[in-house]
Amino acid sequence: MLLQAAANYPVETYVLENDAECPAGHLCHHFTKGDITDFEDVYNFGKGLDAITIEIESVNIDALKKLESEGVKVYPRPAALEIIKNKITQKNFYQDNQIPTAPFVITHRKNELLKHADFLPAAHKLAMGGYDGRGVEIIKNEMDCEKGFNEDAVLEKLVTIKKEISIIVAVAEDDKNAIYPPVEMIFNQDLNQLEYQISPAVLEEKILWKAEAIALAVVKNLKSPGIFAVELFIDLDGNVLVNETAPRVHNSGHHTIEAAFSSQFDMLWRVILQYPLGKTKPIMNAAMINLIGEAGYNGNAKYQGLEEVLEIDNLFVHIYGKAKTRPGRKMGHITVLSNERQQLIHISNQVRQLVKVIS
Amino acid sequence: MLLQAAANYPVETYVLENDAECPAGHLCHHFTKGDITDFEDVYNFGKGLDAITIEIESVNIDALKKLESEGVKVYPRPAALEIIKNKITQKNFYQDNQIPTAPFVITHRKNELLKHADFLPAAHKLAMGGYDGRGVEIIKNEMDCEKGFNEDAVLEKLVTIKKEISIIVAVAEDDKNAIYPPVEMIFNQDLNQLEYQISPAVLEEKILWKAEAIALAVVKNLKSPGIFAVELFIDLDGNVLVNETAPRVHNSGHHTIEAAFSSQFDMLWRVILQYPLGKTKPIMNAAMINLIGEAGYNGNAKYQGLEEVLEIDNLFVHIYGKAKTRPGRKMGHITVLSNERQQLIHISNQVRQLVKVIS
Repeated sequence: MLLQAAANYPVETYVLENDAECPAGHLCHHFTKGDITDFEDVYNFGKGLDAITIEIESVNIDALKKLESEGVKVYPRPAALEIIKNKITQKNFYQDNQIPTAPFVITHRKNELLKHADFLPAAHKLAMGGYDGRGVEIIKNEMDCEKGFNEDAVLEKLVTIKKEISIIVAVAEDDKNAIYPPVEMIFNQDLNQLEYQISPAVLEEKILWKAEAIALAVVKNLKSPGIFAVELFIDLDGNVLVNETAPRVHNSGHHTIEAAFSSQFDMLWRVILQYPLGKTKPIMNAAMINLIGEAGYNGNAKYQGLEEVLEIDNLFVHIYGKAKTRPGRKMGHITVLSNERQQLIHISNQVRQLVKVIS
Repeated sequence: MLLQAAANYPVETYVLENDAECPAGHLCHHFTKGDITDFEDVYNFGKGLDAITIEIESVNIDALKKLESEGVKVYPRPAALEIIKNKITQKNFYQDNQIPTAPFVITHRKNELLKHADFLPAAHKLAMGGYDGRGVEIIKNEMDCEKGFNEDAVLEKLVTIKKEISIIVAVAEDDKNAIYPPVEMIFNQDLNQLEYQISPAVLEEKILWKAEAIALAVVKNLKSPGIFAVELFIDLDGNVLVNETAPRVHNSGHHTIEAAFSSQFDMLWRVILQYPLGKTKPIMNAAMINLIGEAGYNGNAKYQGLEEVLEIDNLFVHIYGKAKTRPGRKMGHITVLSNERQQLIHISNQVRQLVKVIS
């Protein structure tokens, strides 16, 4: 999606990825096969480029730092990425900067969990390498402690969540910023699964202000240009707490492709190319439904129900072109535009029933 | 732009072009360097593909016909392309199907023009190979006949034009169609240059109906699935006349990328992939300004004024990524969304003053 947006601007694109058949492979000017976690691969790739950005946090930071020291612009700055990449430094960062976040303790071995029984129920989150729900275990009681991680991790007190929202903020080189309206995640309460997202979130004005102020505080303290998704919990008392921050284009901003004057992808190019920031105002309200690899299917992806949903007028399909599906893998998304919230909800549920990614 | 849209669907793309550095070169899965006018190049390229479409009429039709006979789907059908590709057969097609078009005579040698002095003022149009204003000479009087073409051509009586509009129509394999609202071309009267386009055109209802009926008659008689731009003149008496038809995605539909629920590019993929047709209803009204190579500049393209126009909120930049500019070359376009016509006009004029493609 970043490369689809790149094609609107005078920019030559280079991609580093381990899989030459990845979706980005055929949409860039120059593809390099390599391991984004490997110092040499990242350094050799970036040497001599004008600017670099990332789409996942697990990039080799030492290589990015060396590239930055040699004059390559890196979005986000490696120092900001380093804070975020490790959930321990990320949580400490919130605490150090008086940014509200759920109470937590740091653990290194599974057997430490029992010492924090007063913290339960809690989420045990791997410090490094978690992604898309992997690396998180819910520890409800002492019995569950066995499920914890035997590595550096954060044990975070579970908050009773009224609403989960995300705010995307762009930061330009000159520190100007642009805030997108908050997006609301709609979860299946039973399965704890994201069903769809709606933008804008329905929030009391004072909670909106609080949330925006917190999102801005996060990005200001990260001291980096780029684009950031700040995920926030709103608890039953109306407290707003940072869940986590992603220093990159984010799932919660996919609807902006059609629903905003400047999409998150367009916006990141504006940051990188040092153009003025775009307008975050919605063109229309939107819902976004992820297309997730169906449980039980592994192999060459097939998309069931596409024709049926393409009959729906105000709907946009994005299939990412990943060759293989596996259970839970993000294979695409669908955006629905409508200013009627009931229609967004109705069509989102329709889409969820109609479309299945199988093999 | 077609490949940007392709990235939303499960489709593997192949491009044939003579210039490996062309904008499409890096946005497809498989690039083949070759001459689209050459039988062998087109045939070898298309052999074994599921479907083919074109972005310019000058493709080798014999090769497309052979491919079609071997089971490759071709959009538009080669038979329809053949009618349109030659302005003589195109004009005869309108006449044979009672589709209103300006009176014309067919000429083969320049010296025939003097015999048609009663037709003047007229436009002399090369039968084959005209593109973007090339291959057209205005013959005002007998003195001008010297400027005429010494090849097969059409001499078309000049119509006193009140308005020039374009209607894009998509036709599915099952003959269903979808009509976009007409677009109005705004010309500089002195230079006879397209300044910008506005969608939708402001038309009396009965002229709109007439225009839509004529556009539909054109595509129905072409008997081909695909996407078609029917360019129409409205004369001072309210007559609607077909100027010409393009059997492909078209300049007059570029605003649909942001302004319609299904863009002309998305729509063509829906036709090719045999999905349901998309919705042509506008999300917002729009203006579209072409970015044209400035007179006097040849060489590596530079874009003056981009930063200034990117300050404008409701504006979308599309730079095509062509390496070289030359006078009059289409290098990109800018779309403006607004439901206020005065704002569309105002910003279009601003853009035209601010942005220059130089070298």
